[in-house]
Amino acid sequence: MAITFGDNQYGKAEVRLVKITRDSDRHQIEDLNVSTSLRGDFAAAHTVGDNAHVVATDTQKNTVYAFAQQYGVGQIEDFGLRLGRHFTDDFDWVTGAQIRIEEYGWDRIPVDGADHPHAFSRAGGGTRTTVVTIDGPQAWVVSGLTDLTVLKSTGSEFTGFPRDRYTSLGEDRDRILATAVTARWRYIGTDVDWDKSYTDIRRILLESFAVKHSLALQQTLYYMGEQVLQAHPEVAEVRMSMPNKHHFLVDLSPFGLPNDREVYYAADRPYGLIEGTVMRDDAPDAGRAWQAVPGF
Amino acid sequence: MAITFGDNQYGKAEVRLVKITRDSDRHQIEDLNVSTSLRGDFAAAHTVGDNAHVVATDTQKNTVYAFAQQYGVGQIEDFGLRLGRHFTDDFDWVTGAQIRIEEYGWDRIPVDGADHPHAFSRAGGGTRTTVVTIDGPQAWVVSGLTDLTVLKSTGSEFTGFPRDRYTSLGEDRDRILATAVTARWRYIGTDVDWDKSYTDIRRILLESFAVKHSLALQQTLYYMGEQVLQAHPEVAEVRMSMPNKHHFLVDLSPFGLPNDREVYYAADRPYGLIEGTVMRDDAPDAGRAWQAVPGF
Amino acid sequence: MAITFGDNQYGKAEVRLVKITRDSDRHQIEDLNVSTSLRGDFAAAHTVGDNAHVVATDTQKNTVYAFAQQYGVGQIEDFGLRLGRHFTDDFDWVTGAQIRIEEYGWDRIPVDGADHPHAFSRAGGGTRTTVVTIDGPQAWVVSGLTDLTVLKSTGSEFTGFPRDRYTSLGEDRDRILATAVTARWRYIGTDVDWDKSYTDIRRILLESFAVKHSLALQQTLYYMGEQVLQAHPEVAEVRMSMPNKHHFLVDLSPFGLPNDREVYYAADRPYGLIEGTVMRDDAPDAGRAWQAVPGF
Amino acid sequence: MAITFGDNQYGKAEVRLVKITRDSDRHQIEDLNVSTSLRGDFAAAHTVGDNAHVVATDTQKNTVYAFAQQYGVGQIEDFGLRLGRHFTDDFDWVTGAQIRIEEYGWDRIPVDGADHPHAFSRAGGGTRTTVVTIDGPQAWVVSGLTDLTVLKSTGSEFTGFPRDRYTSLGEDRDRILATAVTARWRYIGTDVDWDKSYTDIRRILLESFAVKHSLALQQTLYYMGEQVLQAHPEVAEVRMSMPNKHHFLVDLSPFGLPNDREVYYAADRPYGLIEGTVMRDDAPDAGRAWQAVPGF
Repeated sequence: MAITFGDNQYGKAEVRLVKITRDSDRHQIEDLNVSTSLRGDFAAAHTVGDNAHVVATDTQKNTVYAFAQQYGVGQIEDFGLRLGRHFTDDFDWVTGAQIRIEEYGWDRIPVDGADHPHAFSRAGGGTRTTVVTIDGPQAWVVSGLTDLTVLKSTGSEFTGFPRDRYTSLGEDRDRILATAVTARWRYIGTDVDWDKSYTDIRRILLESFAVKHSLALQQTLYYMGEQVLQAHPEVAEVRMSMPNKHHFLVDLSPFGLPNDREVYYAADRPYGLIEGTVMRDDAPDAGRAWQAVPGF
Repeated sequence: MAITFGDNQYGKAEVRLVKITRDSDRHQIEDLNVSTSLRGDFAAAHTVGDNAHVVATDTQKNTVYAFAQQYGVGQIEDFGLRLGRHFTDDFDWVTGAQIRIEEYGWDRIPVDGADHPHAFSRAGGGTRTTVVTIDGPQAWVVSGLTDLTVLKSTGSEFTGFPRDRYTSLGEDRDRILATAVTARWRYIGTDVDWDKSYTDIRRILLESFAVKHSLALQQTLYYMGEQVLQAHPEVAEVRMSMPNKHHFLVDLSPFGLPNDREVYYAADRPYGLIEGTVMRDDAPDAGRAWQAVPGF
Repeated sequence: MAITFGDNQYGKAEVRLVKITRDSDRHQIEDLNVSTSLRGDFAAAHTVGDNAHVVATDTQKNTVYAFAQQYGVGQIEDFGLRLGRHFTDDFDWVTGAQIRIEEYGWDRIPVDGADHPHAFSRAGGGTRTTVVTIDGPQAWVVSGLTDLTVLKSTGSEFTGFPRDRYTSLGEDRDRILATAVTARWRYIGTDVDWDKSYTDIRRILLESFAVKHSLALQQTLYYMGEQVLQAHPEVAEVRMSMPNKHHFLVDLSPFGLPNDREVYYAADRPYGLIEGTVMRDDAPDAGRAWQAVPGF
Repeated sequence: MAITFGDNQYGKAEVRLVKITRDSDRHQIEDLNVSTSLRGDFAAAHTVGDNAHVVATDTQKNTVYAFAQQYGVGQIEDFGLRLGRHFTDDFDWVTGAQIRIEEYGWDRIPVDGADHPHAFSRAGGGTRTTVVTIDGPQAWVVSGLTDLTVLKSTGSEFTGFPRDRYTSLGEDRDRILATAVTARWRYIGTDVDWDKSYTDIRRILLESFAVKHSLALQQTLYYMGEQVLQAHPEVAEVRMSMPNKHHFLVDLSPFGLPNDREVYYAADRPYGLIEGTVMRDDAPDAGRAWQAVPGF
């Protein structure tokens, strides 16, 4: 038996970058949280503390800021590809890189009915994400969104589930359905109009959640992914993670009161957690696209 | 010397209430986090464990849910007044009550250009709050908002501050100004169209942040409060707590790069914290309005 | 009517300071989170953006770090007094200062049965705090601890509380009692062996929670404060804020199972919140000691 | 092209279970956060909303509580195996299960030098974890710990790293090294004295962090894993995720002050993130042991 060094990666996490574009009076803001990680020949650092191959995480951070100045940010997928390829191109022993980005949205503050040119308020409605993975000459892009909290006050049932000794839940033909969507979709290639895809996929996720009469959160999840795939041939698969944010009807009968689907308790823990993948049967292999991506 | 019992209060914190109004196909959602606390003659519980006066916190929670069914929620200030007065009216030894409410906003999901009647997404742009304090026959209402995150990419300076041995900060004639506004305003009475006041005050806070050329975050704070008071005679004073969410220009010169107010690092800690009150000089005394309200 | 400027303060929040003392091979570590705020004549900054009086929050941060080097940290109360007095002494228009400090504990890592001289692990058991308030020549010290999570698996009852229409809670003669103690005690003077007081008061809080048969969390709170006052003449009053972290017995009867105080669900929200003050009847006036301290 | 259903799982997350054992006056407390997820034939729920196979997440929660009563908790790995096998054994279409458990430690409160029999304070020093994965007749156990925060005030260097255009970091021969260890180790079988292994592995992780002179956090990570494997033949591999919690020496020279490794700023973001695996070369294949485990 010998002890060996296995899977590994390292990098700088959560580099907070805000870039202002001032080429007109109407400023643009880009607000990112960027994490980088590298793979390659880093065994010597681990086994004997030889750092000749260790591109410092401080250098990785500097590169994020410098690239924002040199090349701009633009679409986060492009920014991630540029950063990832830089690390694998410029350092022989770096064979892989993963760039994870969250983008925070900002709305322009309306003043007298017009959008202000340089004052913003933080937008709600979830956070845009991307994970760009580089392995030698190959690149994969998995984009998505997280913390998109949605709720339906009707149009959701949960019935017909199996009952065993430990089942006490009743059948429910009209319940609140609420979740905070995390969705990630793998693009087939890298020649994509990322912003356009993102905007439309987000719209589809919201609309399909809204319109689908739900017999189970699982069914809603599948429908949402299916609608994305039908409209977006550039997407190979969609993975979703959707907590069932339970809203329990409060029993008011001890107080002599009715409660016909009016008053609910919004619970924190525990929560259901439904996770699933909807994919094309002819999609190219995922390769390393999902490596190190939190999920299932 | 003797040991005595001083200031005290107790109650149920963070009762999560969601109320759905289904009187038409276009459902209404009200989503609150309600905390109640009582004051009065509770000494015996403390000194000898006699609970004859202790309205159970579980009962307080039940009352929140029951009242939502019996009377509806409506404007959160009215809901708070009704709850607070119930406790002081119904229990002789309860002389005071404070009801603190956060209200989470929901937007209707747009489908094919129309708002969906029963599907919602959680709104951004801060959380509406109220603190209703009852003391015997008196009542005070302090409403507000929190977590309203805003940013200006220009129109902010910070110069002319004093320099001592420990001062290294340079003068800055064009910096990013960012904060997460917590504002609380005390109403003069309780006969107010709360929703209308709230909506307009929120608009004023946003607009005045946007349009005011800022020589200091202190100046912005004062201006925001002043604008509220000038437009809203029903408001006696405004208290604001505004962290200075620093955005530092990254020094790219070691990499041979310029950085003319383009690339910033958004810092977490430490942060400046500016807190101040803007008030009418003829406002009625605040009484217990600010009792136990986090602030300064 | 005129609009005026009321109560205010500003400063730098959450300066994270770690100080290593290396005067022997056995290093000492001091790990603090320091927040400073100033009061005084700051009206001009607010009303006209004149910063001539605004000691920059960046300068305040620098002062924290510089003082740690110049004078050491030592007992956090002394560090707070030194910082606070510096601001009021060195700037004529600064009439008041408040220094809030959290101190994080570290244990030495045991190696072969001996404490390691320079390797540490973060301690549990709550965080030590102090709030030092300076107003002209006067100074007050309110020290305490927070996040001290404790639980008793028996020796706690809750019975005899009043019942109204909204009461459904049953009497309970043997329940779990759990809380996360926040306690703050006001010292009568500033000539105190702070570390010694802190250590013993923390011990008393833990022991008195443990040994007191509890008829209500209120009674436990009072007893804990009383024990502190009886043993510590240097303390004028103790204020405690104790959430009732509910542990509900799970109803296993639908599954044909007993549950004789064995299996509990630890709930998050809502929670009871019990807050009270125990004081000496001959204590000196609190002055500004509690100004801006979160509480009740 | 057709759209198909891919990888998926669902279950109940964060079931908070506290179990008190009262078979003597000296009570035992077990405090867990249990998450369950199932795999198998769940396609119909997704595609047509047929829930005949959907073991309700509410039922899964009930099972956790009921099993605690029926069989006790004991070592969390055994509790996880029992739960996981129940789901795959009792429901034909459930082919896989994963049980994830966090265990929170409690210390007995000392009173007059003796441990109290039924009063506890929450322990620090990290949280014990396990992930039990069942796939048909196979079972894997990956145990670990998280949030074990440690710091060395000397004995850590970082030098010899490559320099490119974006490198500004200086060589450092004596820095603070701090991290919050998340470690997970895969056991070779399931016939293990889990508590004994856990206790000793935790000790080794702490000691090896303390004693290893560190040339890179990578080297420390590898050394820690190597020491575990050398002492524990029942462990196949160790995966660690260690943020580099940067402590930056504050530049006090603008204030005319030295700073010889005394005064540090503890930064939040960004942070380095070092992740690696140390394994036996003759270890059995990992199978599904790491499926859905957050990592790299």
